[in-house]
This record gives sequence, C-alpha cells and structure tokens, in this order.
Amino acid sequence: MKIALDAMGGDLAPRSPVLGTLQFLQDQTSGMEVILVGDKTILIEELGGSTPKGIRIHHTTQVVTMHEQGSKAIKTKPDSSIVQGINLVKDGLADAFVSAGHTGAIIATSLLSLGCIEGLRRPALAAHIPTATGGKIICDVGANPDARPEHMLQFAIMAAIYFDHVEGKSNPKIGLVNIGSEPSKGSELYQETHKLLKKELPNDFIGNVEGRHLLDSPADILICDGFVGNTILKFGESWVSLFIGQLNKQIMNKRSYQMVARMLQPVFTNLKKLYDYEEFGGVPLLGVNEVVIVSHGNSSPKAVKNSLLAAKKCITENLLGDIQHGIIEHMVVVN
Amino acid sequence: MKIALDAMGGDLAPRSPVLGTLQFLQDQTSGMEVILVGDKTILIEELGGSTPKGIRIHHTTQVVTMHEQGSKAIKTKPDSSIVQGINLVKDGLADAFVSAGHTGAIIATSLLSLGCIEGLRRPALAAHIPTATGGKIICDVGANPDARPEHMLQFAIMAAIYFDHVEGKSNPKIGLVNIGSEPSKGSELYQETHKLLKKELPNDFIGNVEGRHLLDSPADILICDGFVGNTILKFGESWVSLFIGQLNKQIMNKRSYQMVARMLQPVFTNLKKLYDYEEFGGVPLLGVNEVVIVSHGNSSPKAVKNSLLAAKKCITENLLGDIQHGIIEHMVVVN
Repeated sequence: MKIALDAMGGDLAPRSPVLGTLQFLQDQTSGMEVILVGDKTILIEELGGSTPKGIRIHHTTQVVTMHEQGSKAIKTKPDSSIVQGINLVKDGLADAFVSAGHTGAIIATSLLSLGCIEGLRRPALAAHIPTATGGKIICDVGANPDARPEHMLQFAIMAAIYFDHVEGKSNPKIGLVNIGSEPSKGSELYQETHKLLKKELPNDFIGNVEGRHLLDSPADILICDGFVGNTILKFGESWVSLFIGQLNKQIMNKRSYQMVARMLQPVFTNLKKLYDYEEFGGVPLLGVNEVVIVSHGNSSPKAVKNSLLAAKKCITENLLGDIQHGIIEHMVVVN
Repeated sequence: MKIALDAMGGDLAPRSPVLGTLQFLQDQTSGMEVILVGDKTILIEELGGSTPKGIRIHHTTQVVTMHEQGSKAIKTKPDSSIVQGINLVKDGLADAFVSAGHTGAIIATSLLSLGCIEGLRRPALAAHIPTATGGKIICDVGANPDARPEHMLQFAIMAAIYFDHVEGKSNPKIGLVNIGSEPSKGSELYQETHKLLKKELPNDFIGNVEGRHLLDSPADILICDGFVGNTILKFGESWVSLFIGQLNKQIMNKRSYQMVARMLQPVFTNLKKLYDYEEFGGVPLLGVNEVVIVSHGNSSPKAVKNSLLAAKKCITENLLGDIQHGIIEHMVVVN
C-alpha cells in the first residue's frame, strides 16, 4: 500500500508530516510506503540526511498558501504538493492522499482530477466529534456551504458507511441538525431534508437533533450543510481550551487553589484528552473517486500519524466501493 | 410603567413567573406594575391568596402548548396568555410583554398584532452570550431560519442599538459568523451579507468571525441567520453542563480526588456562574413595534426577574425609537 502525504501542508510542515510518518511506519509491516510530496532538499534535511525504509520523496517545487483561492490551485500551482499528491493517486501511483494543507484547494483539485463517485456530485467532509460516550460523525463540515436536500441525503449515506467502516458500528443512527424537534422546524432546506431522510432512510433516521443535544443525542451521525457543520465543529473545538483556560486562570488566583489543583492534574489531563480533536487525525473527503483525507491545519505529528492510519483503514475496508453501492441504492438525481 | 408577563408560559410556570415578579418588584419604585397574564384561580393560589401591591392579574383561560403550531395561536387560542398579553401591549394597557412560552407563537402573534417597525419586515432575536470578557450579542437566534442579506443588515443595525442601550457600549463592533476570514468564504447568503455590511456599516463591521473565535473575537455583535444562531446558542448552553458533568464523573472515580475537589468548589461555582445563560434573562424580539422579551423555556425566578429588568431597560432607554431611526438611516428595500 502507498499513501501520498502532503509534506508541505499545514502550519507545522514539514516537521509534523515527517515525524508523523516516522511514527506511523514504526507499527506497519513492510508492504507500506509513504510518499512524502514536497521539496526534496527540505525533506531530506528534515529526515536527517537520508530517506528511511518505507519512505519515498516525490519532489515538488510549489506550495499552495492559505491566502490563495483554492479552486485555482490546479492551474496556478501545478507543481504544488497538493496538486502533485492528488495526481499520484489519479495515476495509480498512490492509494490515498493525505494533507493538512489548504482545504479548498484539496477539495477543488480532488474534484477536478479524481472526480466523484457515480451518481454523486458533491463530496462532503465527515468529521469525528468526541463525546463522553465515544464519538459521533458530523457531515458536512465545510465542503458545501450551500447544499440541497438531495446532497444532504447523500451525505447521510456516505457518513453512515464511513462510520460503519471506521468506528465499527453497523446501522448507525442518523440525526438531522435542526432548531427544533418537530419535522416542520428549521429553514426550508432542513424541512425538505427531513422529509427526504425519513423517506429514503426510514430505519436509520431518528429525526432532528437540536443544538443542545448535539453531543448527547442517540444519533451517531449528525447531518447538516457545510456552513452549519463547520461552525459547530470549530466552535466546539474552541470551547474546551477556552474553558480550561478559564479554569486555570481562576485556580492561579489563589495559592491554596494552586496546590490543590496540582493533585487534580490527572483529571484535567484526561478531560483534555477526551475532547482532543487532534487525537482523531484527518477528516475523509467522502464521495471523490479515491481516498482523500483532510487533516487539521495545525496537525501535530500524532494527528498526521492518525490521518495516515485513517487513510489505511479506508483502503483496507473498501470504503469507496461500499459508498458507491450505497449511493446507487438510493440514487437521487442530483445537480 | 406596566409590564405584562405571561404567567402560564415556560416549563416552570406559574411558580417561576410569580416568584420572579415578586423578586423584581422588591427593588422597584411604586410606579411599576406587573400584569400577570393567566388563570386567575391558579395565580391567586400561587400568590398565597391575595395579590400584593404592584401586581395585577389579567385572567385568561387558554395556554399555548409547545406542541402547537405557533403561527396559528392567534386564531386557535385567542384567550391564551400569549395572545392576551400581547393584546394588552397593543391596546396601550401595558408597555412591554415578557414570556417564557412558545417562541413561535410569541413571534407570530407579535408580528400580526403589533406589526414591525417601519421599513422592517423581519424581527430578530438577539441573545446575550456570556464570555470571559463580559459578553456578546448574537443575532438572530431563531426568528428567521431563512434570511436574506438585507435582513441580516437590519439584524446588525438593531443588535448594535440594543447592545448600546443594554450593555452600555456605544459603537459596538459587528462581526459576521462565517466559515473563513476571507470575504469570499461561506454560502452565497454570507458572501452577499459580507458585502452589504461592509458597504452600509463601514465603521462598525470588522469582518467574518469563524466558529473557533465566536467567544474570543473582538466583535461585540455576531450576525447570522436564525438557524445558525439558534444552533450555536443551544450548543454553547449544553457544553458547560456537559463538561462540568464529565469533570464531576472523573472526580467521583477516586476518593482522593473527591476530597481535593471539595476545596476547589468555589472555582467550579464561579465558572458555572460565568457561563450561566439563565443569568441573562430574556432575549428581545427586535423589530416589532413594541417591547417584547422572549425568555428561556425553563426560566428560573431569577431569569424571569432579569427578563422583567431587560423589558424595563428597553422602555426607559427608548430602544424602539432608536431602532426606528437606525433602520430609516440604512433603509434598504426588504421583502
């Protein structure tokens, strides 16, 4: 198996991709290869002068920066790590692409180079949100700021198959993010989507999930458009650190608190870990014709390692083929 | 001054409205009257047999339940506490209406009975979100699950005036909730709204605010459609109690943690209070032709008291008149 990794993408590149790759390869058998896509000189230096077994470098000269328009990357930066990495997959030289780089560029280039699964026009990002009882998938979290009910049905089908493959729970329960529990609640988009999900996925759809129950509802999958999903995901990410920051600030106010708090350190560490989005590596871009994993912009080596593991799992579990079947089963004309 | 209070609305009615009224009146001068709108027999019993000074009862026989369609309340429940309470304001017998009842019914009845401020067609709910540095206003949080750019501009104008009047900070900074900082980010609605806010409010609009910065951005006002706002608000509300629940659970796991945690109790209590949405009472329905305050469904007596205080402040600070001027100043043809 070969995984192409954008070694120039993300705030901590190239160090994080390189270290994450080394960590990932430690536990892999000899058939596994990671192709680091990026500037050869920089990467060899980062690797300490030579390329270890299991690593190959695919030299590129350009990088898509965060201020560029992602949709134009394929034209303006043809020799970037994103465009070249996706090309490796397209040409059958890699089985998956992983990147912590410009999300818009990854999505646009994937769409143009790899295309969508038949019957599907809108890929979607399915993120893991940690909860007290394990975790949920929320989809879409940013690929489709504007979506239609038919798209959202397809998000649900794809996310359910992904959840089944990656979290190992079959027949996951699907909920629709909404501002009330009744089917008539929400915007037109959500009212129509509710009807469609009820009709097409009667056994799995459990109805609307309000904001206050996003983390404790029985739904394994939360469906929404990319604007709502991205906002929820990022808001949730910010909460934990803000809250722990506040806690720390209050504790530092008093010497007696400080001493006591030290004894509770394991509790705080556990909590932080429980809600640590970095633990969960990348987010799959569901619906494109190959395995593409989008990682958090400030991915740590551990997050990169977990993203590589996610890519591997998608390949070995035949995620693509199963999504293809799922989409055909509920074929809806999508524009 | 007379404030009509829905004494039958909310999960904790009539006890919460009655107790909240008594608490509110304790600090008021003699000119203040609260009209409890609801079943006379029930309310007199709740009041202990008689109506104290400053309280009057307006007898009604119906209640709008949470399962009814709010838009039909004015026809199906003409003698409900919501419809009658709003009528008191319409007829000049009260200066404001406060309710923790069915939000949809309050909005629909207000629109039909009281109408909108001239030039404005869409009222909006402006909620306070507590943050480490005081608080922000997020608008809209549910009145408009579907909105247009012109509506969102008006939300911004109204919310800024409300912030000025209630939080006492003039020229508040306005941010647009979005999934990226660049103007080109987000759905069509948010791209267009960005342009409009930049054009119409060049001195106050500071650009997009991503989900991860909702609580720590420099924006005092966060503008969004009612679907996004409601989801954010409710998600935020749920976070604190979920997180504290997790903290408790971990602490209860070990006897030594329990003893230590007891000493940190003041810290936890402070934190809970800092993020306590109940502290902030009601949410004004901005844009209707009178002062209407929508309270949280499970409002405590303190929340009711704070809602009554908010209503009083809106009246004394001439919120309505100033919003009227603000809207005329930026008159945009709105459908």
